[in-house]
Amino acid sequence: MKAFMDQDFILSNEVAKKLYHEVAETMPILDYHCHINQKEIWEDRKFENITQVWLGGDHYKWRFMRSCGVEEKYITGNASDKEKFLAWAKCLGKAIGNPLYHWSHLELRKYFDYQGILNERTAEEVWELCNKKLAEPSMSVRGLIQSSNVTLLCTTDDPADDLECHKKIAEDPTFSVQVLPAWRPDKAMNLEKPTYLVYLASLERASGMTIQSFADLCKALSVRMDFFASRGCKVSDHGLEVVYYAPASADEVEAIFAKRLRGETPSREDEFKFKTAFMIYVGREYAKRNWVMQLHYGCKRDNNTQRFEKLGPDTGFDCIGNNAPAADLADYLNALEKTGELPKTILYSLNPNDNAAIGTILGCFQDSTAIAKIQQGSAWWFNDNKKGMEEQMLSLANLGNLSGFVGMLTDSRSFLSYVRHDYFRRILCNLLGTLVENGEFPEDYETLSEIVRDVSYNNAVKYFGFDLKTVE
Amino acid sequence: MKAFMDQDFILSNEVAKKLYHEVAETMPILDYHCHINQKEIWEDRKFENITQVWLGGDHYKWRFMRSCGVEEKYITGNASDKEKFLAWAKCLGKAIGNPLYHWSHLELRKYFDYQGILNERTAEEVWELCNKKLAEPSMSVRGLIQSSNVTLLCTTDDPADDLECHKKIAEDPTFSVQVLPAWRPDKAMNLEKPTYLVYLASLERASGMTIQSFADLCKALSVRMDFFASRGCKVSDHGLEVVYYAPASADEVEAIFAKRLRGETPSREDEFKFKTAFMIYVGREYAKRNWVMQLHYGCKRDNNTQRFEKLGPDTGFDCIGNNAPAADLADYLNALEKTGELPKTILYSLNPNDNAAIGTILGCFQDSTAIAKIQQGSAWWFNDNKKGMEEQMLSLANLGNLSGFVGMLTDSRSFLSYVRHDYFRRILCNLLGTLVENGEFPEDYETLSEIVRDVSYNNAVKYFGFDLKTVE
Amino acid sequence: MKAFMDQDFILSNEVAKKLYHEVAETMPILDYHCHINQKEIWEDRKFENITQVWLGGDHYKWRFMRSCGVEEKYITGNASDKEKFLAWAKCLGKAIGNPLYHWSHLELRKYFDYQGILNERTAEEVWELCNKKLAEPSMSVRGLIQSSNVTLLCTTDDPADDLECHKKIAEDPTFSVQVLPAWRPDKAMNLEKPTYLVYLASLERASGMTIQSFADLCKALSVRMDFFASRGCKVSDHGLEVVYYAPASADEVEAIFAKRLRGETPSREDEFKFKTAFMIYVGREYAKRNWVMQLHYGCKRDNNTQRFEKLGPDTGFDCIGNNAPAADLADYLNALEKTGELPKTILYSLNPNDNAAIGTILGCFQDSTAIAKIQQGSAWWFNDNKKGMEEQMLSLANLGNLSGFVGMLTDSRSFLSYVRHDYFRRILCNLLGTLVENGEFPEDYETLSEIVRDVSYNNAVKYFGFDLKTVE
Repeated sequence: MKAFMDQDFILSNEVAKKLYHEVAETMPILDYHCHINQKEIWEDRKFENITQVWLGGDHYKWRFMRSCGVEEKYITGNASDKEKFLAWAKCLGKAIGNPLYHWSHLELRKYFDYQGILNERTAEEVWELCNKKLAEPSMSVRGLIQSSNVTLLCTTDDPADDLECHKKIAEDPTFSVQVLPAWRPDKAMNLEKPTYLVYLASLERASGMTIQSFADLCKALSVRMDFFASRGCKVSDHGLEVVYYAPASADEVEAIFAKRLRGETPSREDEFKFKTAFMIYVGREYAKRNWVMQLHYGCKRDNNTQRFEKLGPDTGFDCIGNNAPAADLADYLNALEKTGELPKTILYSLNPNDNAAIGTILGCFQDSTAIAKIQQGSAWWFNDNKKGMEEQMLSLANLGNLSGFVGMLTDSRSFLSYVRHDYFRRILCNLLGTLVENGEFPEDYETLSEIVRDVSYNNAVKYFGFDLKTVE
Repeated sequence: MKAFMDQDFILSNEVAKKLYHEVAETMPILDYHCHINQKEIWEDRKFENITQVWLGGDHYKWRFMRSCGVEEKYITGNASDKEKFLAWAKCLGKAIGNPLYHWSHLELRKYFDYQGILNERTAEEVWELCNKKLAEPSMSVRGLIQSSNVTLLCTTDDPADDLECHKKIAEDPTFSVQVLPAWRPDKAMNLEKPTYLVYLASLERASGMTIQSFADLCKALSVRMDFFASRGCKVSDHGLEVVYYAPASADEVEAIFAKRLRGETPSREDEFKFKTAFMIYVGREYAKRNWVMQLHYGCKRDNNTQRFEKLGPDTGFDCIGNNAPAADLADYLNALEKTGELPKTILYSLNPNDNAAIGTILGCFQDSTAIAKIQQGSAWWFNDNKKGMEEQMLSLANLGNLSGFVGMLTDSRSFLSYVRHDYFRRILCNLLGTLVENGEFPEDYETLSEIVRDVSYNNAVKYFGFDLKTVE
Repeated sequence: MKAFMDQDFILSNEVAKKLYHEVAETMPILDYHCHINQKEIWEDRKFENITQVWLGGDHYKWRFMRSCGVEEKYITGNASDKEKFLAWAKCLGKAIGNPLYHWSHLELRKYFDYQGILNERTAEEVWELCNKKLAEPSMSVRGLIQSSNVTLLCTTDDPADDLECHKKIAEDPTFSVQVLPAWRPDKAMNLEKPTYLVYLASLERASGMTIQSFADLCKALSVRMDFFASRGCKVSDHGLEVVYYAPASADEVEAIFAKRLRGETPSREDEFKFKTAFMIYVGREYAKRNWVMQLHYGCKRDNNTQRFEKLGPDTGFDCIGNNAPAADLADYLNALEKTGELPKTILYSLNPNDNAAIGTILGCFQDSTAIAKIQQGSAWWFNDNKKGMEEQMLSLANLGNLSGFVGMLTDSRSFLSYVRHDYFRRILCNLLGTLVENGEFPEDYETLSEIVRDVSYNNAVKYFGFDLKTVE
C-alpha cells in the first residue's frame, strides 16, 4: 500500500517518480489563466484565518458542503469563520474520491506544513495551526505567490478595466512576479443581457469614444486591446455557452446592434448572428496582435434562480451543458482560417465528452506558425481532477501532440491553488511513466525530461511569447 | 491469478477485501426500485424449473441469445423449458465481459450452491441440480426474498392500481419484509398514446371522480397519491424519453388536454407542454408529501416494430437515446426550486455520457433538508455492469458526495437479482479500497466502514424515510 | 518494467501472452475494409524509399507533423523525400501516447527488421536501412501483402468503376490473395454536391442506361450491384455525415430528384429525404443479395477550406462530429426490419461517445440469420488506438456479444498497415487475459482460444460469406 499523500503521491512507478522529482517538481509556475484579484496582490493582503483564505469565494467547497446537507448559514451565511471551518472539515473528512480532498491536503502540506489528515476529529487542531501560520509575514498574498515559484500570472479583466493595479505591480521593484492582464470581453458581446447598455456606457468612457454602431464597438474594442497590449497582455479569454457559427452580412449585424441600442431584446437567432460577428472580429484582432484566443464553452450558468438572486454569480450553481456542436466550432475556426486570420487558440469544453471532437478539430487547423498552434486546454473546472486530467492528456496524446501541450493553469480565485500545478505534474509524470513501464515508450530520459519540462513550463513560455526564459 | 469468482470476486486489494467481508457483505438489502410482481409474493409462487425463474421475463438474457443467433423459438417461442435452458447455457459460455456472466454465476453460487461454471458442457448437470433445488420449500418467492436479507422492497405501480396485494402482504404476520408500492404515473402523462382515453377511464374509476380537465386529472392524481401514501408509498418514478422543459400557461395546458379528450392527437410541441405541466404538478405534490421523485430518462423504447407487435413491450428491443439536453433538466428542477417545491430527486440517464452533466446539475440544487437531496441514481439497466457502476461512482465521487449516495437497487423482474446488490457492494469496496491502496485516501477504517454501511444501506433508510433501523 | 515493444508488447499477463502467441499471432488476415489502390497490386508496385511507402498518402502522419509545427513543404510540399522523412522522424520521436508511435515501430520491426527506436537521432540510419530493404524483391506490394499472411482484402470502389484490376488480379495464377471490390455509392447519394450531375453521367455510361428519375437511378445501381457481385463483391460501405431518417413518399423523392436534374440545389430537408429513400433502397438490395452493409458516420470532412482547395480531400482536415441522433439510426434500421429487409449491418461512428448507444441498438435487431447480424465496427480512424479499441471491445462485451465480433480491418491506404491487425489482436488478447487474471472469466483455454480465433479471423469468414476456410 502506498502511504497516504506522501512525496510520491500519484506516482505509481519508478519512471514517474524520477520524472517528477528530478524534473517536474522544481520547474517554475506560469499561471496563464486565473481569477485572482490583482488588488489583493497590490495591497499584499493578509488573512486572519484559514476560512478567509480557504472558504472565502471557493464555490467548489460550497457545493460540496451543500451536497453534505450543511445549512447555508455555515457556507455563505453569518456563522463565524470558525464555525464555517468546522463544518467544512467535517464534510471534507468523507470526501473520498473528490479532488477537494487532494487539493486541500496538498495545500495543508505545502503552505501550512501539516502532514496529517483533516476531518471532524482534527479540525480544531488544524484551525489553530493554520491561523498561527497565517500570522507569519511570509503568508501574505505576495509571499504565497513567491513561495509557489510563480514567474508570471494572468488575471482576467474586462475591456473597460483601467488595469491600474497591473501598472503599479509592474512598477514595484520589490515584487518580481509578472502580473499581466488577460482580455475577457464577455460583457461587450452578451447583448442579450439587460445590463448591456450600461456596460456599453462604461466601455465608451474607457475608450474615450461613443458607440453608436457595431463598427464603433469594434473600434472601441480595438482601442482597448491596444491599451491592454501596452500593459503586457498577450492572451484573451471568452466564456461561451456554446460555440455557435451563424454568419450574417455586415448590414444585418448593424441592424441587430441598432435594435439593441434602441432597447429591444434580440431574438435567439439575432443573438447568435451578432455573437458570431463579434467573435470573427475579435479573432482577427487577436491574430493581428499575435494574442492567444482562449474559448471556454459548454457551461450553463446560474441554474438556481432563488440562490442567484441571493448570492449572485459564481457561487456554485453552474452545470455542464451537453449541447455544443463540434460542427459550429470547426466552422468558426475555418471562417478565420480562410483569410489567414486564425490566431493561436486554446479550446476548453466543460463537457468531457467533447474531448475527442476537440482533439480532432485541433488537427484541422495546425500550421508551422507555432507548435500545436491550436491547443486543447487542460481539464477545466469540474474536470480538474485526476480522472479528468488523465482523460484529457490521454485523449490529446492519442489525437494530437501531447509534447506541445501548454499545460496547466489554476483557473482559481485562491492564492493557495498553485498546488494544482503540482497535482497536474504528478499526473503527467505518472501517465508518461506508466507508458514507459508498460513498454509503450522507451526509457529515454532525455526525451521524457524534455517533454516534462515543456509541458510543465517551457511550452507556455514559448507559445504565449512571454518575456521569460525557458528552463533547460 | 485470482481464482474465478471466489469469495474475493472483484476485490483486488486487502482494504477492499476487509471492507467487503467485515462490513458490506452482511448489510441488509433495501431494494427501493424493482419491477417484481407483488402477486407472486402474496401467492408465494414456486418454480418448476430454472427456466421459469431465470428466463421467464428476462429481456437481458433474451437480447444476448438473439446476439448469438439463437432462434426466437428458444427464446420466447414454444420450445420446451429445457431446450431454452440448454440454448441459454450455450450462449452464456461465451459471454466473456458481459454482466450476465457475473450475475448468473453469482446467482448459481448464492441460491443453488453451484460453484462450477455454466456452459454448453455443464448445462445438463446444472439443469438437474437447479431444478432439484427449486423443489425445496425455501426456494419459493418469499423464501428467496428472506434468504437474501431484504428488509424492504418497492414495487412499481400505476396510480389506478388497487394495491390489494400490498395490503394483504402487509397484514400477513408470517412475512416480515416490507413490500411497498411506488408511484409510476407514466400512463397518466403520456397523452400521445392511442390508449390514453381508455387509461383515463380506469383512473376515473380508481379515484371515484370524473376527469374533464387537466385540473381534474391533477385532482384525481392527488387522491390516488393519498391512497398510495396510506399504503406506505414514499417514492415515485417516471420513465421519460427525455427531460423536457416547455413551460406553458394553465389555459394552454387545459386547451391541449381538452383537444386530447376530443380525440385529437397532440403535436409534439403540445405534448411537451402538457408533460412539462404534468411534471411540475407532480413534482410539487411529491415535495408536499416528502416523497422522493425518480426520473429515468434517455431510453428509446420498442425500436423493432415487427417484434413489438408480436411480443409487446419490455422484451429486449429498447436502446439508449443520446438526445437529453442537460439545459432542460436543469430548467425543470429550477422551476420547482424557485417556489421551494423541489422534492428529493434521483436522476438516472440511460446514456452514460450524461454522468458528468448530471453530476454537476446535482450540485445546483442541494440544500440542508437532506444529505445529497438530489442524487445521481446507480448505473441503470444497460450500464448496470462493472464498468458502468465504477464510472457512475467515480463520477459522483469527483463531482458530488459519494458518501451520501443512496446506492443500489435491482430494477429487476426476477427474484434472484438480489445478488446485484452484492455485485455493487464488491465494486464499491474495491473502488474505495483502491483509492486507499493508491495513497489517495487514508487507511481510516472508521470512516471507510461508515461510508460502506451508508452507501450499502443506511443512506437509503434515512433518505427515503422508511420505517427501518439503520445498521451501525 | 516491460521492455519497449518486444514480443510481449501490450500483453500484460500470462493468459494474454499465451492467447496471443499460441493462437492469435499466426491467424491469417482478412482485411474486409481498406482504401488501398488495386492498381498498385496489379502492377506490383515497388517503392524507391521509405517516404513513398510511409508518408505518401498518410494523413495521420501529416496531421501529426502539422501539430508539431512542421512546414507544409516537408509534409505535402516539394521538399525531397529524405527531408520529409527526417522531418517525420523528428516528430515521431516525441509522439508519446500516439498510435503512430506504435504503428510505426510495429512496421519497422515487421517489414524492416529494425528493432531500434526511430527519432531525430536515428533517422539517418533508419532511412538507409529501410531504403536498402525496400530494394529487395520481396518488398513489392504483392510481397508485402503475402508476407503479411493476408488471405483476402476488399478495396473501396465506386459503382461506376470498371473493376478491371480486380478481374486481372483474380485471373492471375501467380497471386493467391483474393482482392475483392466493395461497393461505396456515396457519390450516387450525395445530390447536394456541385458535381452530382457529372457523376450521374458516369453512372449512366457504366450501367448503359439513362437516368431521368430516382427509379432510373435505383435501376442503374441495381445493374451495377449485379456487376459488382459478379466480381465477388459481398460488402457495401457508406460514408454518412449522420444517419438521418426522414421518410418521404415516392412522389416527393422523385420531385426532389427531378429538381436536382434541372440544376437546382436541394434544401437540407430535401437532401435528408432523398438520402433516406436512397438508403432504404440500397439496404433492401443488400438484403436481397446477402451483402453486408457498412455505415460509417459521425465525420465532418474538409473543415479547412484553404487547405482543401490546395490539397483536396483526405489530406488530414476532417474531424469528429457530435450530432448523430441514435433515434434516427434506430428508426432507419427499423424501417428495413419492418418488411424483413434489413441486411447484415456494421455500424461505425467516429464519435466514441456513441459506443453505448450503438451497443444497445445492435440488440434491437439481432436474429437467427447470423451470429451478431448487426455489428459494432472496430474502433474507427481517430479511435483506432489502444484506448479506443479497448473501449469499443469492452463496450461491446458489456452490451452485446464480443465472441461474435467480426474484428479488425485496416481502413488504410498503406501496404504496411497490416500490423494494425497485430496491434488489435494484442489488445484483444490482453483484454481477455486481464478478465481471466482478475477472476472474471475462467481459465478455460478451449473457450478462450475459440473466441480469439473467431474474432481474429473466423467470424469474418463466416459473417461475410467469403470463399475461405476457417482456421480451427
